[in-house]
Amino acid sequence: MARLVQKFGGTSVRDAEHIQRVAKIVHDAARGGKEIVVVVSAMGHTTDELINLAESVNDLPDPRELDMLLSTGEQVSISLVAMALQKLGLKARSFTGAQAGILTDETHTFARIKTVQPSRVETSLRRGEIAVVAGFQGMTRTSDITTLGRGGSDTTAVALAASLKAECCDIYTDVNGVYTTDPRCYGQARRLHTISYEEMLELASLGAQVLNARSVELALRQKVPIRLRSTFEPGDTGTLVTLRELSPDYQICGVALDTNRVSFRLSLPRDFSVKEPSLDDGKPNHYNVRAQRVVEELCNLGLSRDHVNLRTDGDSICEIEFNCEKRLSREAREVLLEFFPQNNGTLLRVDSDVARISIVGVGARERHQRGDMINALRQASIPVAMVTTSNISVSAVVPAKYKDDAVKQLHETFCNGHNFADAQAAT
Amino acid sequence: MARLVQKFGGTSVRDAEHIQRVAKIVHDAARGGKEIVVVVSAMGHTTDELINLAESVNDLPDPRELDMLLSTGEQVSISLVAMALQKLGLKARSFTGAQAGILTDETHTFARIKTVQPSRVETSLRRGEIAVVAGFQGMTRTSDITTLGRGGSDTTAVALAASLKAECCDIYTDVNGVYTTDPRCYGQARRLHTISYEEMLELASLGAQVLNARSVELALRQKVPIRLRSTFEPGDTGTLVTLRELSPDYQICGVALDTNRVSFRLSLPRDFSVKEPSLDDGKPNHYNVRAQRVVEELCNLGLSRDHVNLRTDGDSICEIEFNCEKRLSREAREVLLEFFPQNNGTLLRVDSDVARISIVGVGARERHQRGDMINALRQASIPVAMVTTSNISVSAVVPAKYKDDAVKQLHETFCNGHNFADAQAAT
Repeated sequence: MARLVQKFGGTSVRDAEHIQRVAKIVHDAARGGKEIVVVVSAMGHTTDELINLAESVNDLPDPRELDMLLSTGEQVSISLVAMALQKLGLKARSFTGAQAGILTDETHTFARIKTVQPSRVETSLRRGEIAVVAGFQGMTRTSDITTLGRGGSDTTAVALAASLKAECCDIYTDVNGVYTTDPRCYGQARRLHTISYEEMLELASLGAQVLNARSVELALRQKVPIRLRSTFEPGDTGTLVTLRELSPDYQICGVALDTNRVSFRLSLPRDFSVKEPSLDDGKPNHYNVRAQRVVEELCNLGLSRDHVNLRTDGDSICEIEFNCEKRLSREAREVLLEFFPQNNGTLLRVDSDVARISIVGVGARERHQRGDMINALRQASIPVAMVTTSNISVSAVVPAKYKDDAVKQLHETFCNGHNFADAQAAT
Repeated sequence: MARLVQKFGGTSVRDAEHIQRVAKIVHDAARGGKEIVVVVSAMGHTTDELINLAESVNDLPDPRELDMLLSTGEQVSISLVAMALQKLGLKARSFTGAQAGILTDETHTFARIKTVQPSRVETSLRRGEIAVVAGFQGMTRTSDITTLGRGGSDTTAVALAASLKAECCDIYTDVNGVYTTDPRCYGQARRLHTISYEEMLELASLGAQVLNARSVELALRQKVPIRLRSTFEPGDTGTLVTLRELSPDYQICGVALDTNRVSFRLSLPRDFSVKEPSLDDGKPNHYNVRAQRVVEELCNLGLSRDHVNLRTDGDSICEIEFNCEKRLSREAREVLLEFFPQNNGTLLRVDSDVARISIVGVGARERHQRGDMINALRQASIPVAMVTTSNISVSAVVPAKYKDDAVKQLHETFCNGHNFADAQAAT
């Protein structure tokens, strides 16, 4: 029998009324003759409220204990969704992440799924039940509860879909698909019928909050089709995330904005650029070697190599430039200062009042796109601070106050033209 | 090293401030060089709120799903208490009922502990940690989450104390011990220094809400001393529940009141008392046999045989009288009507506007106490509806409006006199 995983986010289960709406959607899918696994997040803002509660007791809560606490959010949701399904006359059974066999590493609050052993879920499906599984959580080898980090419920859903060989993973949320850019920021954004895993991954990594990046990575690896749909328009088929060959013939699929960045620029004095004999701190003296170590350490923190620029003057590094998530800025600064102490004529500029704007799509592979993007921003008189490229994206850092203008300008340049065929107007 | 189990109820952990107070009490005990296991209930009214939430989704929630939901309450508490202990510089680790090895039968929402396998708790103690365990919950053989019913956290604490061979199980609550009667109802109530398991069990079974009856039963069987203490007066030693030989030389230890009862009285017509040939419902025809079956079925519902009176007229039953918990009244009525259909000249009187008042103590074994109790109530002009006796108690059903007068009268008669030596004035 065909299997379907349906995942519902926090806004979709935020109160009893919404839970009943979710039950109705599941009910309709089950009536279609499919075996259904439902994955749910915590209700509404529960996770944030629990974090606040933890911080009212201990300002630096232990990650293991925080996971013990946060995992209750999804446990509440699964039981209520199961009850709502039973109320509609369906057989249903809820499972915590541990019970569903979601086994993770031990990185509390940001654990990675190592394997899925869903024997209880399989048994439940064979009994004709709808299995309701807690997203966002798992269990270590030693039976400790872990959580998967923000957006982790998407990952749970994709991992279960892969493990249970589901034909699709439907991710229900409060938007009805993937847009060329966030429609709340730019009314002209258009919705995509399909998007490739690679593009979706790049959009998610560059700030589009519609899907968790890890879940897309996993879906790509396991070839699980994802359909992004709205809980409030269950009839609408949303956006299908799938292999590139099924994707439309556009060059740039969208514009991503990330306002949660801090930019760093470290300028090194020219005189010190080849050697710095006065440094006696056990670190390599050559700037190039030090810079390489900085890049390694930044990557260890989770930064992408693509978003670190090293500028050379002759043979030697003269500037290190990168941007990172705000939550990592303290550690990133420490890495820089460890290898380049500030008292040696270096100049460090840190700016958190910035936005990173990116164009994403296979077209970004072409060399001219970088120049086209810089030109487009300059035409709109937007100062460009740092430009980086990855395989299928070009990103620029701009002052935060220009973010809306930048989205508009890049969308008009790259997403409204002839090279963008398959899309429909935003609803 | 000496081990101590400390259990804290819902009012003791109702918010961040109270949780910090609890952490301080645990901290002080740990500084005394003991290995500490902390058992906690859900915060404040969490359990009731979760039940309301469940009923907003499904008016008859499935017991398995209800347990999945309710168990989150304690899981929140344990993580927060562990964080609060860590904030004080102690090592601490929280455990769900399942992780602590509390294995139960499959009676969801009212499960019984079958065995305790606390190897993770042992390991934690050996590492010098304070183990913080979720009360009220356990796990079945098949890894389903169960709950133990109201007051179940007391049972968890006693079961762990027995299994870990703790020297004592301290139960912290918002009262500072066991009183001769509820001090909120009667200001002259006096606190007991010690009480025997049997008396405590009888008081708990007869309505005293200070301790869960199952937990006392377990403590008696496993010889675990329980100390009942107040979170708000941690220096006070409260009341010790222990073996009778350590108990004081009083005859009646207290007066229990239970306002959550319904009384039933079924009168059978005399003419039908020996045989009822017109009944053709596959049930035995003889009234005495039917009455015996009624008693069996009532006991199956959880009623105590001690609280069912059968009255005979000549050789045959003419009246069946009992009282039961309000939540069982529908089922009790069905049992009665199954064996004695109402269209046969029977008369059933059901009264839920009643209170059951009891005197408890070894002195109640003496025959004259029954008469003394009835006399005392009559002297105060309180109508007495039904009198029952057990091994160490005498109970009477009175109209609810007389409950306070009845407590006062019985306390003055049995608990203020010369036969009541070991007690101190209510604080």
